Amino acid sequence: MSGARNLSAALRRARAPRPRIALRPTCTQTPLAIAARSFTVSSTVRADREIKFTSDAYPNVKRNPNFAELTPEHVTYFKELLGSQSAVIDGVSTDASDDIEPFNSDWMRKYRGHTRLVLKPQTTEEVSKVLKYCNENKLAVVPQGGNTGLVGGSIPVFDEIVVNTSRMNNIRSFDQASGVLVADAGVILEVADQYLAERDHLFPLDLGAKGSCHIGGNVSTNAGGLRLLRYGSLHGSVLGLEAVLPDGTIVDALSTLRKNNTGYDLKQLFIGSEGTIGLITGVSIQCPPRPKAVNVAYFGLESFEQVQRAYLEAKGQLSEILSAFELMDGRSQRLVQDSTGNKQPIEGEYPFYCLIETSGSNAEHDMAKLETFLENVMGEALSPTALWRWREGITESLSHLGGTYKYDVSIPLSELYQLVEDCKQRLTEKGFVGDDDSFPVRAVVGYGHMGDSNLHLNVAVRRYDKEVEKAIEPWVYEWIQKRQGSISAEHGLGIAKREYIGYSQNETMVKLMKQLKNLYDPNGIMNPYKYI
Amino acid sequence: MSGARNLSAALRRARAPRPRIALRPTCTQTPLAIAARSFTVSSTVRADREIKFTSDAYPNVKRNPNFAELTPEHVTYFKELLGSQSAVIDGVSTDASDDIEPFNSDWMRKYRGHTRLVLKPQTTEEVSKVLKYCNENKLAVVPQGGNTGLVGGSIPVFDEIVVNTSRMNNIRSFDQASGVLVADAGVILEVADQYLAERDHLFPLDLGAKGSCHIGGNVSTNAGGLRLLRYGSLHGSVLGLEAVLPDGTIVDALSTLRKNNTGYDLKQLFIGSEGTIGLITGVSIQCPPRPKAVNVAYFGLESFEQVQRAYLEAKGQLSEILSAFELMDGRSQRLVQDSTGNKQPIEGEYPFYCLIETSGSNAEHDMAKLETFLENVMGEALSPTALWRWREGITESLSHLGGTYKYDVSIPLSELYQLVEDCKQRLTEKGFVGDDDSFPVRAVVGYGHMGDSNLHLNVAVRRYDKEVEKAIEPWVYEWIQKRQGSISAEHGLGIAKREYIGYSQNETMVKLMKQLKNLYDPNGIMNPYKYI
Repeated sequence: MSGARNLSAALRRARAPRPRIALRPTCTQTPLAIAARSFTVSSTVRADREIKFTSDAYPNVKRNPNFAELTPEHVTYFKELLGSQSAVIDGVSTDASDDIEPFNSDWMRKYRGHTRLVLKPQTTEEVSKVLKYCNENKLAVVPQGGNTGLVGGSIPVFDEIVVNTSRMNNIRSFDQASGVLVADAGVILEVADQYLAERDHLFPLDLGAKGSCHIGGNVSTNAGGLRLLRYGSLHGSVLGLEAVLPDGTIVDALSTLRKNNTGYDLKQLFIGSEGTIGLITGVSIQCPPRPKAVNVAYFGLESFEQVQRAYLEAKGQLSEILSAFELMDGRSQRLVQDSTGNKQPIEGEYPFYCLIETSGSNAEHDMAKLETFLENVMGEALSPTALWRWREGITESLSHLGGTYKYDVSIPLSELYQLVEDCKQRLTEKGFVGDDDSFPVRAVVGYGHMGDSNLHLNVAVRRYDKEVEKAIEPWVYEWIQKRQGSISAEHGLGIAKREYIGYSQNETMVKLMKQLKNLYDPNGIMNPYKYI
Repeated sequence: MSGARNLSAALRRARAPRPRIALRPTCTQTPLAIAARSFTVSSTVRADREIKFTSDAYPNVKRNPNFAELTPEHVTYFKELLGSQSAVIDGVSTDASDDIEPFNSDWMRKYRGHTRLVLKPQTTEEVSKVLKYCNENKLAVVPQGGNTGLVGGSIPVFDEIVVNTSRMNNIRSFDQASGVLVADAGVILEVADQYLAERDHLFPLDLGAKGSCHIGGNVSTNAGGLRLLRYGSLHGSVLGLEAVLPDGTIVDALSTLRKNNTGYDLKQLFIGSEGTIGLITGVSIQCPPRPKAVNVAYFGLESFEQVQRAYLEAKGQLSEILSAFELMDGRSQRLVQDSTGNKQPIEGEYPFYCLIETSGSNAEHDMAKLETFLENVMGEALSPTALWRWREGITESLSHLGGTYKYDVSIPLSELYQLVEDCKQRLTEKGFVGDDDSFPVRAVVGYGHMGDSNLHLNVAVRRYDKEVEKAIEPWVYEWIQKRQGSISAEHGLGIAKREYIGYSQNETMVKLMKQLKNLYDPNGIMNPYKYI
């Protein structure tokens, strides 16, 4: 508490002019959809650049010779099974490379596979038959939702069949009294949230890709996002799942009960396993009432120490209404300014900026709490704007610069930002960082979810460069391991971190994971070549 | 919302005199410890009654002949391994039946085993060596924490060795910034919470048995308790676990990170599996800041329909500060009154009573919200008392009456209380219910966690009676299955519900659970004869 008081004093001394804070009232539509559109924008901007095949980028990864090669007979089976024309994109019997390309590569243009077949089943039974046939015929499969991942988890490496959930997009039920939503895996997150908004509820997950990502993909990658601080992890909010095992077994664990202690909680295994042991087809999730009042504040601070103190003060004073505490460094905010041409919401330059969101049931109470916090921390409040853009716009702004090496890590709070400083220093010393085009690295920036001790370290490059990558990896993972952090806080491992799991999991854990993989997927057909 | 207004009107019309509501401010010690003491009380009261052996009560359950019989040589190994005298209670080489009895039976005096050996290891390494030896020598084991369970899960059936965690009781670390507590499995819940209280934090679980139960036992049974509504399930709040597999493998998944997406979340398998695949030795858990203001209100209502409306109104108006919404029927409250001799907090008799708790960061705001809610719902506020006693005292009051058949179930909210009515009618029609001692059933009462759709149906009996039991089971499970409820919301299955898992889990799920059980415990030594 005395720390908090010191902070206030320090802040008052340190800063002039006082920053302006926009308080945004009850929002029916969050501004995050803007960021979701970045996928389209960046693809357009960089469409001329050829994406390297993952098989070339990872020459050590060899195609598993146990897998069968796709034949026209296989394709015929799938066409007969799925019926509809739109359910099969056939690159085996025909040249469909243009149609297939969006399923073969990711929006960051970093990973690219060689699939020749995309299947879009519409029911759980169809998924079951597809997987059973693939398993019996040793055909490898990559489950794919909205394809918004950051680690190449939903992109084939060789000729794996893509099983995409986009045609499984029905909301199955919603119970107003309990707030439980049951929906197909392929429902887009934003669609689910809009549906809930009309019923005064909220999807307990929100992230930049909400306009494209599927809730099945969110669950299978255990997405964290912007409001984990308030609504907790999917391991807690997902009440039930329906999934299909590689042998076609339908796991019907689609409970809608908040409490159900009848045996092992098997559904948990599918949450975060990135489609390596089964394909999620349905989700039952506990949704909270939509907050009646939402406020957002944005402010600058002079040091990371001040950021930490502000966080503790927010935790204490805003407590139950605090729904996000986001950190952005000055470099990331200047990137957004340069890229959008918008004027930053506050005057003056700061090394750190924070965005705080409160969500509560009483606008007056929430505003009073926020104002007390802001008085203690720094000052006056001003007119509302889409402040979230300054946080959510970072990904898009970075994408305009070329490529980005993205590291999504958990680190104990006190050292959270040190990684950015250390990484910048390392790359600078190696002569990689500079203002003109001869330097591969343009900027090293950090931002993330302060409330979850989750940092996004981003190295913006003019071009992907193996030497730069080698300077970062495995150095960055060793740095994190030393601090008992996690090399993947919320993005997952995919192919990007396939060789690095040992930095965050011990040998026993990896062995136990492999044991489970072998139990459920003895032929290894589910999402092969990834981290397991 | 118009429903909520109608409720207010209906309530105002229906009731005179207006109920009194006590608002209890920031409590350093919750009144729940009172209920925890009921274990001692009831044991004393009924010490004269002999507890039936579980092996006699369940004659179909036969001792697994693959298990070895304990010999003095086995005991010698354990004594040498664990060193300390107090670590081994040896009923093999000596007559130690009096010392062993508390570990052989439960506080409800419903389950009783034949163990002749109790081990109390002090470290994870010791647990590892104990289990490895047991596995190699085919010695069956029952993990036991505070032995406060309600389904016989921690009681041996035959001569299984009891491995008790009471000597593993160190708090390993607490991080003030993140709120993460790491502690041994044998730390008593109340001790952990007191430790946290001194550091302005709260254990995110609270239940009547807090004075005796171990946090390892809480996690292994996925305890729900009184504040799940606010702080969520242990599947969300437990960040890491340390556990020992039957072969002695130490599963070190004791992460303290809020986010860690590096592979399968194996720790989840130990949460709620009741010690059937491993023994939890350490827990890492996310603890919220302790609320600065806690208020409790107690009121009566005329119908279950009004209770439902009051719940929806509370959810809407109290929203983020609502930490408990408990339902108690009139019969349960009269039992508490008869048993304690205390006067009920409000005048008049109602068929239903509710207890609401709010926990927030600003006393003024919380009181304003609660008063608005109470104005709409019913009336004035009065002096504070230990209102929680009227909810938490039910278990103790019931225990004075003789035995209790306890059913802990999840049912969709609209039908939550109907089960009590239907059960009472059924038992009355069969001639079991009456006021004098010739009738086995004394009362059929219902109470529970309204906010979790979790009902506790309790049939208070003068004596345990197979005919009464047969009239309730499997009828009660069929009733729940028809409504897609859960036959065990938070108590677990143990031996009590070993044959009934099929009412809440389909065949595929049971098969998959057995597959995992065989994977981790091929000799079946961990907590045998229970539900799996």
